[in-house]
Amino acid sequence: MSEIKTVIGGVCAPAGFRASGAACGIKAGSDKKDMALIVSDVMCSAAAVYTTNKVKGAPLEITRRNIENGRAQAVICNSGNANTCAPGGLELADRTCEITAEALGLEKTDIVVCSTGVIGQRLDIEPFEKGVPVLAGSLSYDGADDAAEAIMTTDTVPKSIAVEFEAGGKTCRIGGIAKGSGMINPNMATMLSFITTDADITPELLDKALKEVVETSYNQICVDGDTSTNDMVVVLANGMASNPCIDCEGEDYTIFKTALSFVAADLAKKLARDGEGASKLIECNVKGAPDKAIARRISKTVISSNLLKAAMFGEDANWGRVLCAIGYTDGDFSTDNIDVTMSSAKGTVFVCQGSSHKEYSEETASEILSEEQITIDIDMNQGDGCATAWGCDLTYDYVRINGDYRS
Amino acid sequence: MSEIKTVIGGVCAPAGFRASGAACGIKAGSDKKDMALIVSDVMCSAAAVYTTNKVKGAPLEITRRNIENGRAQAVICNSGNANTCAPGGLELADRTCEITAEALGLEKTDIVVCSTGVIGQRLDIEPFEKGVPVLAGSLSYDGADDAAEAIMTTDTVPKSIAVEFEAGGKTCRIGGIAKGSGMINPNMATMLSFITTDADITPELLDKALKEVVETSYNQICVDGDTSTNDMVVVLANGMASNPCIDCEGEDYTIFKTALSFVAADLAKKLARDGEGASKLIECNVKGAPDKAIARRISKTVISSNLLKAAMFGEDANWGRVLCAIGYTDGDFSTDNIDVTMSSAKGTVFVCQGSSHKEYSEETASEILSEEQITIDIDMNQGDGCATAWGCDLTYDYVRINGDYRS
Repeated sequence: MSEIKTVIGGVCAPAGFRASGAACGIKAGSDKKDMALIVSDVMCSAAAVYTTNKVKGAPLEITRRNIENGRAQAVICNSGNANTCAPGGLELADRTCEITAEALGLEKTDIVVCSTGVIGQRLDIEPFEKGVPVLAGSLSYDGADDAAEAIMTTDTVPKSIAVEFEAGGKTCRIGGIAKGSGMINPNMATMLSFITTDADITPELLDKALKEVVETSYNQICVDGDTSTNDMVVVLANGMASNPCIDCEGEDYTIFKTALSFVAADLAKKLARDGEGASKLIECNVKGAPDKAIARRISKTVISSNLLKAAMFGEDANWGRVLCAIGYTDGDFSTDNIDVTMSSAKGTVFVCQGSSHKEYSEETASEILSEEQITIDIDMNQGDGCATAWGCDLTYDYVRINGDYRS
Repeated sequence: MSEIKTVIGGVCAPAGFRASGAACGIKAGSDKKDMALIVSDVMCSAAAVYTTNKVKGAPLEITRRNIENGRAQAVICNSGNANTCAPGGLELADRTCEITAEALGLEKTDIVVCSTGVIGQRLDIEPFEKGVPVLAGSLSYDGADDAAEAIMTTDTVPKSIAVEFEAGGKTCRIGGIAKGSGMINPNMATMLSFITTDADITPELLDKALKEVVETSYNQICVDGDTSTNDMVVVLANGMASNPCIDCEGEDYTIFKTALSFVAADLAKKLARDGEGASKLIECNVKGAPDKAIARRISKTVISSNLLKAAMFGEDANWGRVLCAIGYTDGDFSTDNIDVTMSSAKGTVFVCQGSSHKEYSEETASEILSEEQITIDIDMNQGDGCATAWGCDLTYDYVRINGDYRS
């Protein structure tokens, strides 16, 4: 398999993608960018995954309808208002697609529309009527950073990545941006991620690859356990790399999926690290579980535990909370022989062996946990299942940010 | 049905129950009480429910074995150490029963043993060898408060209740104590509750009543979503009220279960209110759900949402977070026509109608939410299912308490 290397350029790294971002007046009383546009020079294969929340943002319904045929060419996204549980939401999302299509000379059914922000407040059409033509006029092959910034809500940093790989003898690229800053935050709503690629791939295989990749990336992060109403990951593939179209699950599909997985996992980790109020990224690796599904659930349950997250904030190697979280994970497995280590750039400490206390220096452990990136390795000692999940610590700032988000 | 009225006396309110509590050296470097003893003058029907966590404290296994025959006469409980994931735990719990039985002139299989505190640290037998005889010597019919205090960990207040009712023409009483201060806190481990009654009831019906009552009380509270390894609710019924033995599901069973439910719900609410760091009790009532089970899940999911809990701390009527939590509740129901109001002693504000924004004054809402007890009423408008759950707000103090519990 050819190698995958990171490159600059975010969603504009793949050939034929332009982007822009601007302040269009949705984030009232602020000059922050609040609208992003991403456009491909040619029609794309398109695939998306959506939140499992029963309450869904209006834009999700319009987007689902528009890409039902596996095709799309542009993404319009606003931050500051989720257009969810608010009157006239569907009409507004549909009209936004019309305005965007007019400005770009496309059909409205070729537009992906997304919103993120407060739930339950009416979103007006005026900012789109004024803003979209401005965004269309400022589209640029260097515009990825503007777009990444324009989709932020409580995010503290824009999140962007791009990679390069070879498929069918051609150099292909995949780029992506994302916003959190919980995976999952109903009221600033949402994890959103937009991925672009110049690889040529059928809509069916693009959909399949995305669904598989999501399981081990976006679905394995947690900031607060609250599943948003507006979560969406969209991928557009415009084929401008001129690789032989990926239309079966051969070598090219494998390298494409590996590169897509790299991009998705990178963005997922960035989302976890920038979780609201977070001061640390927590990675949890599980091995020796009966199967992969159980390993995924265990790793995700551990990084989702409020008590474990608070202990990590306190730099306390409180492994009892790891065992407790494993113990209430759904599934059929033994908890009799679990080993746990905690690591960082400063070293590793073996804290639990055979599900029981192991002597270690609390001082050393605390020193190791003082780093910004912590790894918790769990060996269930009973099978071949392994998985990784990413989360963050629970801090005073999480409470502050969410105690008065709207005011 | 006869009335149920509250009386003083906690677990010693029912006839024939004595209790004591003392500092026995388990909470090292502290003069806090850390061991409680509750004893009935005569043999009791006994029933218990245990944590669903796969990792279980050693005392749970010994207690389960001892009350398999539906009989017990005394409860010994220590705080400060959970006797979980630590070497020699089963032997220690068994030996604790022996020591207690010797001091009281009972059989060791008549003893209920419980522990709550840090996971993963060896618990020594010496504090029990020295402490249990002292506790046995200080048993008193007025000792309920000492016992309630001795089982506390991070609890800020002892939790106790007793009620009186008539069954079969006789006055019966039920008393209870509990400790949190999460429902659920692996490392200070545990929600524990001990309930006594002088009603005469068969072990089978006592078990049935307890299991039913737990569903609408202890199982409907949440502080942080972390299910402890040591949770246990035990009820002892000694028959000293001389009522005709409750051996079928007639009128007397109904009044007994109603009284038991009152005690359990009262203790559950006290646990939620004293959740770690909590400044408010949040009650969530759901009606109009397709069935009772879905209503329970919805109410519990809402009070478990970190985002909603943080909003309540911030006194922000952020109803979008209520809809979001409803939307990710497991089950088959519609989210199209949901009404939400928020209330306190200061009034009521109608914040969401038909799953959409309803005009209200944020200022009034904030004033209402400034109270210590908040009620969220949800009408799903689709069936007869109703349920209630209790939780607390998420505060800076939760993070502080759990950031360095062990240090």
